[in-house]
Amino acid sequence: MRRTAPCPDMDRRALLAGLALLPALSVPLFTVSAAAQTATSGGSLPSWNDGAAKQAIIDFVRATINRSSPNYVFPEDRIAVFDQDGTLWVEHPMYTQVVYCLERVPAVAAKRPELRNVEPFKTVLSGNREAIAKLSMRDLYKILAATLSGMTVDEFNAEAKKWIETAKHPRWNRPYTELAYQPMLEVLSYLRNNAYKTYIVTGGGQDFVRVYAEKVYGIPPEQVVGTAGGTKYGYGQDGKPFLTKEPKLILNDNNAGKPEGIHLMIGRRPYAAFGNSTGDRQMLEYTGAGAGARLKMLVLHDDAAREYAYGPATGLPDSKVGTFTQALYDEAKKDGWTVISMKNDWRRIFAFE
Amino acid sequence: MRRTAPCPDMDRRALLAGLALLPALSVPLFTVSAAAQTATSGGSLPSWNDGAAKQAIIDFVRATINRSSPNYVFPEDRIAVFDQDGTLWVEHPMYTQVVYCLERVPAVAAKRPELRNVEPFKTVLSGNREAIAKLSMRDLYKILAATLSGMTVDEFNAEAKKWIETAKHPRWNRPYTELAYQPMLEVLSYLRNNAYKTYIVTGGGQDFVRVYAEKVYGIPPEQVVGTAGGTKYGYGQDGKPFLTKEPKLILNDNNAGKPEGIHLMIGRRPYAAFGNSTGDRQMLEYTGAGAGARLKMLVLHDDAAREYAYGPATGLPDSKVGTFTQALYDEAKKDGWTVISMKNDWRRIFAFE
Repeated sequence: MRRTAPCPDMDRRALLAGLALLPALSVPLFTVSAAAQTATSGGSLPSWNDGAAKQAIIDFVRATINRSSPNYVFPEDRIAVFDQDGTLWVEHPMYTQVVYCLERVPAVAAKRPELRNVEPFKTVLSGNREAIAKLSMRDLYKILAATLSGMTVDEFNAEAKKWIETAKHPRWNRPYTELAYQPMLEVLSYLRNNAYKTYIVTGGGQDFVRVYAEKVYGIPPEQVVGTAGGTKYGYGQDGKPFLTKEPKLILNDNNAGKPEGIHLMIGRRPYAAFGNSTGDRQMLEYTGAGAGARLKMLVLHDDAAREYAYGPATGLPDSKVGTFTQALYDEAKKDGWTVISMKNDWRRIFAFE
Repeated sequence: MRRTAPCPDMDRRALLAGLALLPALSVPLFTVSAAAQTATSGGSLPSWNDGAAKQAIIDFVRATINRSSPNYVFPEDRIAVFDQDGTLWVEHPMYTQVVYCLERVPAVAAKRPELRNVEPFKTVLSGNREAIAKLSMRDLYKILAATLSGMTVDEFNAEAKKWIETAKHPRWNRPYTELAYQPMLEVLSYLRNNAYKTYIVTGGGQDFVRVYAEKVYGIPPEQVVGTAGGTKYGYGQDGKPFLTKEPKLILNDNNAGKPEGIHLMIGRRPYAAFGNSTGDRQMLEYTGAGAGARLKMLVLHDDAAREYAYGPATGLPDSKVGTFTQALYDEAKKDGWTVISMKNDWRRIFAFE
């Protein structure tokens, strides 16, 4: 795994793609789509429309929990992994964690005034969104490193928890935590009800996602695998030990880093994997390379009305967040992965609809 | 966490301390101690004698599972961590994994003949135990790196599994896997029966311990935290992906590396921690620094007749494996950790007794 600054895989354009949109913070509440109705069908997956995607999930579970099935999987081996951004919740117009990091800059600069006149902090503090959008990748690393390290683990957890409880998404004017996809929450429950251990395997920061994963997804901290920095054990003046977050990358949990992270943190190959971008490709390949029934699913963002549309469904360029390229689409088709159309497969997208 | 070769914290003298003993491979079966009787008391902990250690475990569990207790712990927060070598199973005369690495050298040299005339492999292949005992720390790293990396994850798992199923401890002439301490197996079950999630947090190799942890301790791979190297994702000629074990240290899970590893892999502070050496000191400190009831226990090896005696109980020098120094003993007393006397607290030590 690479050893550079945290979150190197977040593409600069991806990180900044949404910045231009942020001034429009007070857009009216999104009108609930006519397709969002009270669930009336589907048993464990009421927010799913009948179709190939829903059927693939049900068929997989049936095949692996039925003792007489040739593809039966012992309960202790039932591991399912989920990418987060764009797979479990909204990743547009910007990764939630990047919003957090940018919004933390003033607090960091207050504690470290020497940063105020140093780039890239000066630019971020200026509030000039056009200038911020032009920051280099190297500058962004500096921002991530400064806002995600240098404090104790307890301090970070308290800060991130406070932020996630109050920050709101500009489009829906609701907490980010309400922007989890209801159909995916149902998949998580459905799998857990069938003895699957559900994991998040995210390119986002492991510590950040752990702050809210239990509340939002019912996934405990130890089942969140993400991009992770090191910590350093030390003692306070009172002799009490604590851990400090260091600006040192241990796991870059993107692309090939996802199966590598799965091996490090879980130690066995998943039976089911859900993603939505090229960053999830290797995780799905690795899952699919195991024997027996393996569920590989990709969420396609093709619903501009209820969420966003990007990737091959729209012809948008590949550099956007959650890149779902034509090549990925082709690999999915060739290897029998199932593509989930948000527009067609999901009866509703959010719990609040 | 440090970035050197794997397992740097294994002290050279510690690694080699037992080598001199190994020629005596065919010692007669150890005579079962008179103290090893069929368990007749103790409910969940039948192999424990009544006393302060057993009572500390019971009091801790009662205090944390009783909803009306001021120290009640929600089931999802119940994390207990256990060192392995010397805490859950025998670590004398040599760490089991080091035996494995030394015994793997001929197979590695067969595949890589160029190593046959290169030190330290030449010395290991000579079988000259006196010369092996004089190998430098740097040489030992080379042996660990060569035998624990360079193969696929699947190959390593298969090799280690085969070895652990057949290799026997020189003193008891039984598989190493039978040398788990019965009283500790009972603690693991007792805690799990009270909704505690049990983890191994070992200085040994994470991948190695994961091979047998489920079978020996009932602990699944994802609940084994250990010294871990990186892996590299790649594709075979058939296009199938696989992970190769690399000679690159990601986590040195010893000393301060234990709480750092706990944060990385579990993400929350344990409520109970069991160790037996200075390598476990920070893990016990970190556990003890949390609020409410916290169980901190150290296994003292003071039973030369039934197992081994080393540490302050015997006046043996500090450089032995599983160093339990006078300083650690003093810290335990000062901070209210409980010392388990194998001689006095354990009615029997092994299941086969």
